[in-house]
Amino acid sequence: MLSIGVDIGGTKIAAGVVDEDGEIIAATTRSTPATDPALLEAAVADAVAELRGEHAVGGIGVGAAGFIGADRRTVTFAANLAWRDHPLADELERLTGLPVVVENDANAAGWAEFRFGAAREARHMLMLTVGTGLGGAAVMEGVLLRGSAGFAGEVAHMTAVPDGQWCGCGLRGCLEQYTAGTALVRAAKRRAASGDPLLGPLVQAAGGDRRAIDGPLVTRLAQQGDPGARELIAEIGTWLGRGAATISALLDPDVIVVGGGVSAAGDLLLDPARQAYSASLTARAHRPLAPFVLAGMGNRAGIVGAADLAR
Amino acid sequence: MLSIGVDIGGTKIAAGVVDEDGEIIAATTRSTPATDPALLEAAVADAVAELRGEHAVGGIGVGAAGFIGADRRTVTFAANLAWRDHPLADELERLTGLPVVVENDANAAGWAEFRFGAAREARHMLMLTVGTGLGGAAVMEGVLLRGSAGFAGEVAHMTAVPDGQWCGCGLRGCLEQYTAGTALVRAAKRRAASGDPLLGPLVQAAGGDRRAIDGPLVTRLAQQGDPGARELIAEIGTWLGRGAATISALLDPDVIVVGGGVSAAGDLLLDPARQAYSASLTARAHRPLAPFVLAGMGNRAGIVGAADLAR
Amino acid sequence: MLSIGVDIGGTKIAAGVVDEDGEIIAATTRSTPATDPALLEAAVADAVAELRGEHAVGGIGVGAAGFIGADRRTVTFAANLAWRDHPLADELERLTGLPVVVENDANAAGWAEFRFGAAREARHMLMLTVGTGLGGAAVMEGVLLRGSAGFAGEVAHMTAVPDGQWCGCGLRGCLEQYTAGTALVRAAKRRAASGDPLLGPLVQAAGGDRRAIDGPLVTRLAQQGDPGARELIAEIGTWLGRGAATISALLDPDVIVVGGGVSAAGDLLLDPARQAYSASLTARAHRPLAPFVLAGMGNRAGIVGAADLAR
Amino acid sequence: MLSIGVDIGGTKIAAGVVDEDGEIIAATTRSTPATDPALLEAAVADAVAELRGEHAVGGIGVGAAGFIGADRRTVTFAANLAWRDHPLADELERLTGLPVVVENDANAAGWAEFRFGAAREARHMLMLTVGTGLGGAAVMEGVLLRGSAGFAGEVAHMTAVPDGQWCGCGLRGCLEQYTAGTALVRAAKRRAASGDPLLGPLVQAAGGDRRAIDGPLVTRLAQQGDPGARELIAEIGTWLGRGAATISALLDPDVIVVGGGVSAAGDLLLDPARQAYSASLTARAHRPLAPFVLAGMGNRAGIVGAADLAR
Repeated sequence: MLSIGVDIGGTKIAAGVVDEDGEIIAATTRSTPATDPALLEAAVADAVAELRGEHAVGGIGVGAAGFIGADRRTVTFAANLAWRDHPLADELERLTGLPVVVENDANAAGWAEFRFGAAREARHMLMLTVGTGLGGAAVMEGVLLRGSAGFAGEVAHMTAVPDGQWCGCGLRGCLEQYTAGTALVRAAKRRAASGDPLLGPLVQAAGGDRRAIDGPLVTRLAQQGDPGARELIAEIGTWLGRGAATISALLDPDVIVVGGGVSAAGDLLLDPARQAYSASLTARAHRPLAPFVLAGMGNRAGIVGAADLAR
Repeated sequence: MLSIGVDIGGTKIAAGVVDEDGEIIAATTRSTPATDPALLEAAVADAVAELRGEHAVGGIGVGAAGFIGADRRTVTFAANLAWRDHPLADELERLTGLPVVVENDANAAGWAEFRFGAAREARHMLMLTVGTGLGGAAVMEGVLLRGSAGFAGEVAHMTAVPDGQWCGCGLRGCLEQYTAGTALVRAAKRRAASGDPLLGPLVQAAGGDRRAIDGPLVTRLAQQGDPGARELIAEIGTWLGRGAATISALLDPDVIVVGGGVSAAGDLLLDPARQAYSASLTARAHRPLAPFVLAGMGNRAGIVGAADLAR
Repeated sequence: MLSIGVDIGGTKIAAGVVDEDGEIIAATTRSTPATDPALLEAAVADAVAELRGEHAVGGIGVGAAGFIGADRRTVTFAANLAWRDHPLADELERLTGLPVVVENDANAAGWAEFRFGAAREARHMLMLTVGTGLGGAAVMEGVLLRGSAGFAGEVAHMTAVPDGQWCGCGLRGCLEQYTAGTALVRAAKRRAASGDPLLGPLVQAAGGDRRAIDGPLVTRLAQQGDPGARELIAEIGTWLGRGAATISALLDPDVIVVGGGVSAAGDLLLDPARQAYSASLTARAHRPLAPFVLAGMGNRAGIVGAADLAR
Repeated sequence: MLSIGVDIGGTKIAAGVVDEDGEIIAATTRSTPATDPALLEAAVADAVAELRGEHAVGGIGVGAAGFIGADRRTVTFAANLAWRDHPLADELERLTGLPVVVENDANAAGWAEFRFGAAREARHMLMLTVGTGLGGAAVMEGVLLRGSAGFAGEVAHMTAVPDGQWCGCGLRGCLEQYTAGTALVRAAKRRAASGDPLLGPLVQAAGGDRRAIDGPLVTRLAQQGDPGARELIAEIGTWLGRGAATISALLDPDVIVVGGGVSAAGDLLLDPARQAYSASLTARAHRPLAPFVLAGMGNRAGIVGAADLAR
């Protein structure tokens, strides 16, 4: 059976018709009207209508950043969109006449990796999405963990450092403040501001203006062999490995899938993560170490995962 | 259908016939011959034979401290018993002729609480057993989490404090070093050794010898209102709450069940845990707080949980 | 002998004629031309000329925020003023014809407290100035500590929390990020943003806009008994006490003087500091605890200390 | 003028006649009767008598582990010797008829390095003695810092890690728990117990018994190039550098002298210390970095420093 997956991002709505093998056989996009839920829903319905013109589909899965209720129908809270306790599935069912399930976007992407991507051989998966922020999804015994209120998988806000860096969530020392794109860029700028000579080439590559440093620039310089950029990415990787080790004490996954924009750094990120993971995992002498692998679905993951969850 | 649950402890083997409501309808014990697996298995088989004389049972569940393989048949490693990669289920099936499943003891006790005890209304449960050490068990979507190698639920060795107190597992800053009976007693002794005046009454109650302080003494003084003992237990509770909050970011349970010897302190332990949990849980303004409740099955939990897992 | 003390702040130059008892017998001010060292020096010289019209003075002491060379003549670096390795004493001697010494402003204020203020009975003093940032000065055996390059007393950048909050200096976890006005306001805003109910009254007092929270507002509400504001100040106080305890392990002062804008909170700040100090000081059972006292010289300290150092 | 220096250790009393150039021109030893102050004093007096037979001396300086009163006459507290608020100088003056000053042993050794050893060109010195424990001494403006109660220089008990490793002093996270011989050996044993493969050669060199690992063995293997041993020493060095950086924020010394048994590892210890120091020192772009140098006086430092302080 075909189903439609919709990935609602901050600037763009991406939708596609997905088959049972996880292939996208048709796709379209709309821009995101972020401030008005009704306009956003109309845009989603419009994209769905376009796709249904060519394909018979049985349902819609929607992935969105934010807290999604455990019933998979309600957006409890979304930082970037104008939703508070909003019955998104009800509205979209009314507009489209199709059954709708809603899922957190990191969960949808994780599910795509579990079903069709880097973890398709696994039974227990931890996915960590290292983008601007840090996303997470966990599948155990083949079941995506959602939790009591649908808030499971919020690895970003596990405490990495007591009394550590303040987080936008109102707590201190959240893992996201140590391993995500924002953390990478902040470290680069702060260390550059202090006159750290190791960061000289990075500042130079930013046109001499340390405020112009961004994540892709750090990755590019790291790939060119610049020691300062490599150290910055290695630090993010080290915390990624530490975080994964503390999660693995609890979940013991088969595999750890790493996605998100920062994962473009590849082994420059993953090798330090593997090393820190091995050094931080309890009972490592008595069990196999879960491998760190790169996500394989790219930016299709959101659409494919959401569509598959709708089946 | 009746089944037998066996709880293998460091000094005692406790076994019982358990019905489908989680009631123990017959029970017996043997002492634990810790150094020889064959003797230990013979003692288990002997207890089983006694119980089967009166009751028709369909299988045996065995709970044991240690790492149990994900197949629920093999003891990978047990700190206190002479097992290394030992086929315990095979041996007991050979001796008894009944199907056998093996489970980690904290998991077995957690399952009993989930099925028949403090979490019997829940769908997602976190159990934390605060005894000499710290045990954990997690049930999500009604499924006990075991993980890839059967090592899931090792909350004791999640990192609470980077570069913190060394743990016997070879890592630093493990949660168990902050919230367990050993941590409680160590804090009492160290602070007493430094001449902390708040701990004067506790030392006096230990006959003037700070080395004689133990967990029950601290609990007793705390219950009598002694400020020093209360502060010591509150500190354990605070870390319990912090640990639970970081786990809840990942799992989002309905309920948090607290068992183990230190839980005899009741709200002297749980109130600081609740307060720290609330202060450390991300997005607390957008979701209900999972309640902290005391375990309800007492020391029957190991037998009942193991028996139920055998069905 | 009379001398002139000059306190160069970010917006105002305050100057005064000071007698040998630390009394200011004449005073004047100028606004601070921050971007041009020559204009600033001219303004200082102009203020000095006004004061010399009425009083015979033997020298000038100048206090300024920034790193002052150990020779007490050169401004190595000042974050808010346009000085880099600038021969300030030479320039002012040329303009005024009087001998000039330059000192870090926190050191000048600390010296005033040591000579004429809250620590005038002491031989070893630690002063902590809890303003927007954190300043420090230490006097040991009656000698103001300046160090090799004149950088001594930078308590702000002692590490309080490894991998803690990033500091503007390019390091992480500096004490200033835990105990200063900026830290106070940041904690208030972050916790308010997370919906912490304890901070409701504070947000309300800020006209419903959490971004309008500032330090004096927190202090005012704390003095009115608001629990949220009191908790915020107590947290700053706790870190102040911890920082003082780790400094005292090294210096063992007679007295700890606390000044700066946040010290307006009085015992709401100092009592938590005292408690944390007592709990964090090594060998507390074997020695007296240094008292925490409020600075006594107010904003005269900068002028008086600089003038006295010029003698 | 000649004077006698006495270094009272846990097992041996070493005494010597020292000239004004810091040379020992005669020496003798006694064993330490640790449990009886009177016997110990008699042993010191006997050693002094022997030395005075050949040389005319003007006074005696005594160095001892423990807290020495600021009057330099009284032993407030000594962990390993039977002294509590003991008037050691009075007793020795009565027995010898010579003027006596008492000093903490780390202070005495530090003074020797400042006057005649590795810091003889310096005006401001930090000395860190990395032995079984961690000792410290600071000289600022040419004055040995003693503090209000004589407790200055206790770098061992500055907080390195909040909520870190418990210390024998009753606090948590003291620097001594991260950079000293005991910390080195504990890390080696714990990591070996966890089956860390990197420590395999070290366990083998200890005859296969990880409990037999000691500090000299780790140093020897590190000097032979063993990666595990080098990593262990580098970790101690890293914390040494971090500790020195936080102290330098306060004191800004010219030079950092490193002594004690662990310093036998030389640059295997000092290079990681230098790197961490540079990475952890505030305003490093605006000032010279104090060099780390090895102590130059060896085990003569205690005698020479004590003797010189007696002059």
